[in-house]
Amino acid sequence: MAASAGPEIERLISLLAKLPGLGPRSARRAALALLKRRDQLLNPLSEALADAAARVKTCGVCGSLDTQDPCAVCADPERDASLICVVEEVGALWAMERAGAFRGRYHVLGGLLSALDGVGPEALRIGPLVNRAADEKVREVILALPATVDGQTTAHYLAERLAGTGVAVTMLARGVPVGGELDWLDDGTIAQAMRARRPA
Amino acid sequence: MAASAGPEIERLISLLAKLPGLGPRSARRAALALLKRRDQLLNPLSEALADAAARVKTCGVCGSLDTQDPCAVCADPERDASLICVVEEVGALWAMERAGAFRGRYHVLGGLLSALDGVGPEALRIGPLVNRAADEKVREVILALPATVDGQTTAHYLAERLAGTGVAVTMLARGVPVGGELDWLDDGTIAQAMRARRPA
Repeated sequence: MAASAGPEIERLISLLAKLPGLGPRSARRAALALLKRRDQLLNPLSEALADAAARVKTCGVCGSLDTQDPCAVCADPERDASLICVVEEVGALWAMERAGAFRGRYHVLGGLLSALDGVGPEALRIGPLVNRAADEKVREVILALPATVDGQTTAHYLAERLAGTGVAVTMLARGVPVGGELDWLDDGTIAQAMRARRPA
Repeated sequence: MAASAGPEIERLISLLAKLPGLGPRSARRAALALLKRRDQLLNPLSEALADAAARVKTCGVCGSLDTQDPCAVCADPERDASLICVVEEVGALWAMERAGAFRGRYHVLGGLLSALDGVGPEALRIGPLVNRAADEKVREVILALPATVDGQTTAHYLAERLAGTGVAVTMLARGVPVGGELDWLDDGTIAQAMRARRPA
């Protein structure tokens, strides 16, 4: 990529290029930015990565990432233990937390069922979810899965698996997103918003 | 950003978000990717950063970055010492090297003159360039600066400063880029390509 830059810089660039959102070109720009701002950026990032590698672990209850196990959410007595929100990945859990609209606990599946990618139920954390749902404290499992084919396949499968436990199984509402101009929305969203219309 | 993620992850995200090309949202995705792929990504990146911090330095001759000083280009006896290509930043030097169209030496200015940003000649490596150009071995200084207002202001200033040294001062050609469809080109480029037209 940069014949004259030496193997250390090459290696840094090729690792940065593996991050989602960075291609080869932006990885080079990022490497340069790091090398130009050593004290403000390169050294702190190097330390933050070592710190994270040493201290962040997977929560044994919900599958989230935290420095404590059980994680802060699972350990928080103020969070409603009767509600479990099922998410695909930790990124979705963080998005839910930012929205601040949920005060229960989570369960991270670790992916979605996918016939195309060959992901079966055994590859996901479904057994532990069913066990958690069987606890008599749990009233409701909310499936916060993406509105994609794999997301919906997974939601239907989970609903069936959870049917025996007696908990209520719900899913996020579908409709027009906040700020969503009808002009720019896809037909599927408009059709779902129409079907799920409610009194104004 | 992610209330439940703990300060280590927060710090990692906020440092990643400072990289060019990564915003807060993609920095979160990058942090998750790192935490999920510790052995393939997180640990190697952490080491690569520490390595780069320890070993990469600025070349005392041309201002490029390398693990050796003078850098590999300045130290290479096969590179033509009579040609100096002036670039804004190391990123532009790397782009020139990838193009493989230049076998001389470089000079990294470290920025461009900018009235708006208050960058004057004293902030750039102009004195060292004039000194290098005064060496009798040097025949030509090629200004490979961006085709922007600041790039052209800097090019004119450098041409004046170098006038006394007797070297030829040239700049990159302007015209239609490879693959450039006229439909998508800006008017300025088309006008310059027309003015600089040549026999087919």
